[in-house]
Amino acid sequence: MKIAMVGLGRMGANMTRRIMRAGHECVVFDRAPAAVQALAAEGAQGVASTEDLVRALPSPRVVWLMLPAAVTGQAAQTLFGLLEPGDVVIDGGNSYYRDDVDRAQAAGERGIHYVDVGTSGGVWGLERGYCLMVGGDDEAVKLVEPVLAALAPGVDAAGRTPGRTGEPSAAEQGWLHCGPPGAGHFVKMVHNGIEYAIMAAYAEGLSVLGGAGAGRHVREADAETAPLRDPQYYQYDAIDLAEVAEVWRRGSVIGSWLLDLTATALYADPDLEHFAGRVSDSGEGRWTSIAAIEEGVPSPVLTAALYSRFASRGAALFAGKVQSAQRKGFGGHDEKDELTPG
Amino acid sequence: MKIAMVGLGRMGANMTRRIMRAGHECVVFDRAPAAVQALAAEGAQGVASTEDLVRALPSPRVVWLMLPAAVTGQAAQTLFGLLEPGDVVIDGGNSYYRDDVDRAQAAGERGIHYVDVGTSGGVWGLERGYCLMVGGDDEAVKLVEPVLAALAPGVDAAGRTPGRTGEPSAAEQGWLHCGPPGAGHFVKMVHNGIEYAIMAAYAEGLSVLGGAGAGRHVREADAETAPLRDPQYYQYDAIDLAEVAEVWRRGSVIGSWLLDLTATALYADPDLEHFAGRVSDSGEGRWTSIAAIEEGVPSPVLTAALYSRFASRGAALFAGKVQSAQRKGFGGHDEKDELTPG
Amino acid sequence: MKIAMVGLGRMGANMTRRIMRAGHECVVFDRAPAAVQALAAEGAQGVASTEDLVRALPSPRVVWLMLPAAVTGQAAQTLFGLLEPGDVVIDGGNSYYRDDVDRAQAAGERGIHYVDVGTSGGVWGLERGYCLMVGGDDEAVKLVEPVLAALAPGVDAAGRTPGRTGEPSAAEQGWLHCGPPGAGHFVKMVHNGIEYAIMAAYAEGLSVLGGAGAGRHVREADAETAPLRDPQYYQYDAIDLAEVAEVWRRGSVIGSWLLDLTATALYADPDLEHFAGRVSDSGEGRWTSIAAIEEGVPSPVLTAALYSRFASRGAALFAGKVQSAQRKGFGGHDEKDELTPG
Amino acid sequence: MKIAMVGLGRMGANMTRRIMRAGHECVVFDRAPAAVQALAAEGAQGVASTEDLVRALPSPRVVWLMLPAAVTGQAAQTLFGLLEPGDVVIDGGNSYYRDDVDRAQAAGERGIHYVDVGTSGGVWGLERGYCLMVGGDDEAVKLVEPVLAALAPGVDAAGRTPGRTGEPSAAEQGWLHCGPPGAGHFVKMVHNGIEYAIMAAYAEGLSVLGGAGAGRHVREADAETAPLRDPQYYQYDAIDLAEVAEVWRRGSVIGSWLLDLTATALYADPDLEHFAGRVSDSGEGRWTSIAAIEEGVPSPVLTAALYSRFASRGAALFAGKVQSAQRKGFGGHDEKDELTPG
Repeated sequence: MKIAMVGLGRMGANMTRRIMRAGHECVVFDRAPAAVQALAAEGAQGVASTEDLVRALPSPRVVWLMLPAAVTGQAAQTLFGLLEPGDVVIDGGNSYYRDDVDRAQAAGERGIHYVDVGTSGGVWGLERGYCLMVGGDDEAVKLVEPVLAALAPGVDAAGRTPGRTGEPSAAEQGWLHCGPPGAGHFVKMVHNGIEYAIMAAYAEGLSVLGGAGAGRHVREADAETAPLRDPQYYQYDAIDLAEVAEVWRRGSVIGSWLLDLTATALYADPDLEHFAGRVSDSGEGRWTSIAAIEEGVPSPVLTAALYSRFASRGAALFAGKVQSAQRKGFGGHDEKDELTPG
Repeated sequence: MKIAMVGLGRMGANMTRRIMRAGHECVVFDRAPAAVQALAAEGAQGVASTEDLVRALPSPRVVWLMLPAAVTGQAAQTLFGLLEPGDVVIDGGNSYYRDDVDRAQAAGERGIHYVDVGTSGGVWGLERGYCLMVGGDDEAVKLVEPVLAALAPGVDAAGRTPGRTGEPSAAEQGWLHCGPPGAGHFVKMVHNGIEYAIMAAYAEGLSVLGGAGAGRHVREADAETAPLRDPQYYQYDAIDLAEVAEVWRRGSVIGSWLLDLTATALYADPDLEHFAGRVSDSGEGRWTSIAAIEEGVPSPVLTAALYSRFASRGAALFAGKVQSAQRKGFGGHDEKDELTPG
Repeated sequence: MKIAMVGLGRMGANMTRRIMRAGHECVVFDRAPAAVQALAAEGAQGVASTEDLVRALPSPRVVWLMLPAAVTGQAAQTLFGLLEPGDVVIDGGNSYYRDDVDRAQAAGERGIHYVDVGTSGGVWGLERGYCLMVGGDDEAVKLVEPVLAALAPGVDAAGRTPGRTGEPSAAEQGWLHCGPPGAGHFVKMVHNGIEYAIMAAYAEGLSVLGGAGAGRHVREADAETAPLRDPQYYQYDAIDLAEVAEVWRRGSVIGSWLLDLTATALYADPDLEHFAGRVSDSGEGRWTSIAAIEEGVPSPVLTAALYSRFASRGAALFAGKVQSAQRKGFGGHDEKDELTPG
Repeated sequence: MKIAMVGLGRMGANMTRRIMRAGHECVVFDRAPAAVQALAAEGAQGVASTEDLVRALPSPRVVWLMLPAAVTGQAAQTLFGLLEPGDVVIDGGNSYYRDDVDRAQAAGERGIHYVDVGTSGGVWGLERGYCLMVGGDDEAVKLVEPVLAALAPGVDAAGRTPGRTGEPSAAEQGWLHCGPPGAGHFVKMVHNGIEYAIMAAYAEGLSVLGGAGAGRHVREADAETAPLRDPQYYQYDAIDLAEVAEVWRRGSVIGSWLLDLTATALYADPDLEHFAGRVSDSGEGRWTSIAAIEEGVPSPVLTAALYSRFASRGAALFAGKVQSAQRKGFGGHDEKDELTPG
């Protein structure tokens, strides 16, 4: 089939390549002409404007937006004004699923189909394939299925789940029609919420290993930190975290792709000196916790991971000041003090 | 009655004063002669050694230790060697209740009573009285009751709980025999665990108020932090936190002494510029969470407050580095990056 | 002054009484005629419809809505259609501050002032006064100030904060103009978020005390729960929680009104047999955590308290099933099993 | 080499088999004769007592204990009395690493080596191999290396970490000498702490997906739960969780072995009706959080997962009762009530 890709950043460019490798035709557009030229050199049909892009597609047109969340809305609105009933707009970026719900309604009023695709795989997707979580109406999803199949990793990317037999389902091939518009980004949102927590789980555990020599450091008898009651149990100063991450990759219960990446990072830079420890978050983790709260579903692990990211960027500073001020108030403590009457 | 006080720091000195004001005699000792002299000038009987202190007391002797937790054990051992069966050693410091259990056993083997007293009230105790949580055998607690009553705030310190009539119980006067040795510090430990969480509750809430203008700051369309979906709801830049703390002091559900202290601190220093936000912890908060874990009792709120203190002192740094390294691994993100494929 | 009160439930009726006791005139309306008659018998001017209520007021009219959040919006819309420029609508219920922002805009388009008042004090407000957190424009807040002052507890409800001298501020009297429309409910929202966490702090701490006899119960050597390594430190079976709550009321750092209530409840019903432990939440706690997330402010303590409420109502059930299923998957564990290879 | 295995439960029996398959000789003992006979039938040398077991081994003897943690200590003590200097005792069970530290000291006083091996892999280890985390002195670990290599999965169990070249390290083969005695179980302890959090991350995320239809259920206008402000965003009633787990297995960032198991469980039993949701914990998760606390390392994600397990078994009940009693106290709320003055 023939499809247009708008937005040729790291993700959009690689996805275009993977779609073309599967034998499909791609019309490509980006506000940066160089990005268009690069893909054109690899066989794509470059265009210079959204209008040209629409003209270059057969009916029903399929346009895949792969843009930063902050500009996707405007791009979609522009397309809604150029496309015709029966055409399909796909948002494959990191949109908030609520924007999908609103945009799908706007699109539907013009007879245009709106499909949202949550995409996981990062910079590895060209090679590994992309895990695709799709929302939209059945007709539109059916129409774009060949492209979804081309982008997905395929069934061989993992062993078959015991009990599953016969023709592999779409999910087994790495893409899933999750529900009506927004459902794709909703599932992707939760995916990222889980991702944050798994990342934090390894990070915290490795930190506990890193602190296992706490009993070797003589602590003064002050109130800054309580002395260890049993320092003999904290004498492990030299646990090699890169080797620990490596050993967990084989045969353990906690093997995962994120562990593989952790092992790679620790092998290359055992003290992670290239990182300042300020962890960014990109929205989905926040939205997952908000959804949990609005649904009344407890998600203490997911939200703890999110808050740790906020705190890593200094956002807990004022709360710390308040507590130090309170301690000063009842105990006369300066921030590091000798006696702690409590 | 006549009682000895060992350790004349801020807490021990003021407690001696409060005991003497109630008409009791105090023998006092501290390794700092000046501290002894100061109390002697106020009517206490100063001594120059533990041996002298023991000799200065009538039988059965009652010795109150008010020392840093790290040196209490040694002081108690010394006393156990000097005292006689029937004498009483009181530990009024911030000891781990497990040390009480062990020390009470050692004392008991010599016929000596061991009483542990968890003491709350901080620098305000001389004026307000001390809240005392007591562990020990009935005989010993009965013996020291006059001193406990002298130190406690007394029944008028708070309105009577509805339903309570007749002679006020010891708890209504501000001291409580909680159980066998260690029970006093166990209850005090939990008291402090609760204290940490209440402090953090106010601190977090005030921080949320402080962030209520988040929608006024234009965010670039990047992945460092997701843009607010509804910035119009975060336009409160000028909420006066000192006034908020003040208004909550009257008639609200969250009025408390810690709130009073918070209001005082914010009025004096609205931005809390005198504090760096590194919050100390003195042991009890840790021990409370450990007890919760060993008992199998969920304490997510108490432990979250504890971990926030650790993080306020930089202890989450390595975990942050791990997560930034993982993000780099799957998304090619530098620590602040433009696009977040997730 | 003369003011109308719409909604004569527990809160609205008592607030009307407190306003009248201060010498103001009240016009009252409720869809339940009996509620109107009851207040009329105490001196209020009862009316039978919103239209009558509007007619009974002098210009500029001031109407206080004290309704469940779910019906406040409709009542406000109705009023906006009946009132005139310069009139004031006050929402004193538990509205989401975002609704205030939207409603204030709608009111403003008609020249009507909108004031939101977060009200704390519960069933005790008639006696103690109500803590009032107010949002709105200066002109409107100035206009209703006499009523706010009448409802607030007054300066004597708490000792003056050290450093504050001269004429007491509004906050010292128990009400505060927090900012533009919505700011009152925003501050009240955070107040309740804090409230949830303080409640949970006491609840968790008391539970840890309740579990202090964990070492007395012989545990079979199975994998359901790990055996205690040091059972000798968990032998406190008989800590009297009602007495503990009582003793903390005097002189301790954690004294508070919520502690007073806890002591009352435990004295009346030591095992709290009248409660099933399903803790409701009314919105503000959720909204506080959502605000924290959207602002990027870590609030692990507040959110942990919220999630515990969800879980208390059974909302963590499916998550538990998933984890039991995972354990079965890697370890062959039934939900209670003998050996746990991990 | 020749090695003895004591404890022929699910784990010990399969490990014996894997050792024999690699060409080593095994002497086996269990208090259940049938378990001994079963392994004898597969080529092991069965013995009827610990004494016989010791006699059946060449010097230096190597005895692997694979017993429940609660009985390992006694078994080790018995062996210490029967073995000779230079012999090796291996504890491959789920012991607390602190017991290893103590036992290694006791063993060392007799010249006996003590090696602790944390073992992950569960019921799948016979097929996949076991991930082994080893503590002990260099000499002893060197001696037992052939058996460790036999049990470990081998380098082919996972792709090589980028950057690693040359002869694969022990960690790359699936076993690691982590440090002195106790270090093996310390690392395994943290492994399980991480495991709990990863399990909870998936469980919470799937629960959020399961609640995505929250907006379809009309809520009464009461205070039990706040009504959703935007129900139109919670209309996903039919997200197929088994298919979601399946799609995440291919190409996504959160692919893992625990996800594989989750997908298997959900495919077999979509509503997980075979599970009651009471999640057991076996010690390591608790110990990990205790270590984090004693080290002063924040682990909010790991501990949140642990507490959720406690709560899943009903351990938060009293805390819930306290909070419901408090709500009743300030708001007059019964546990489900109509109006929530807050």
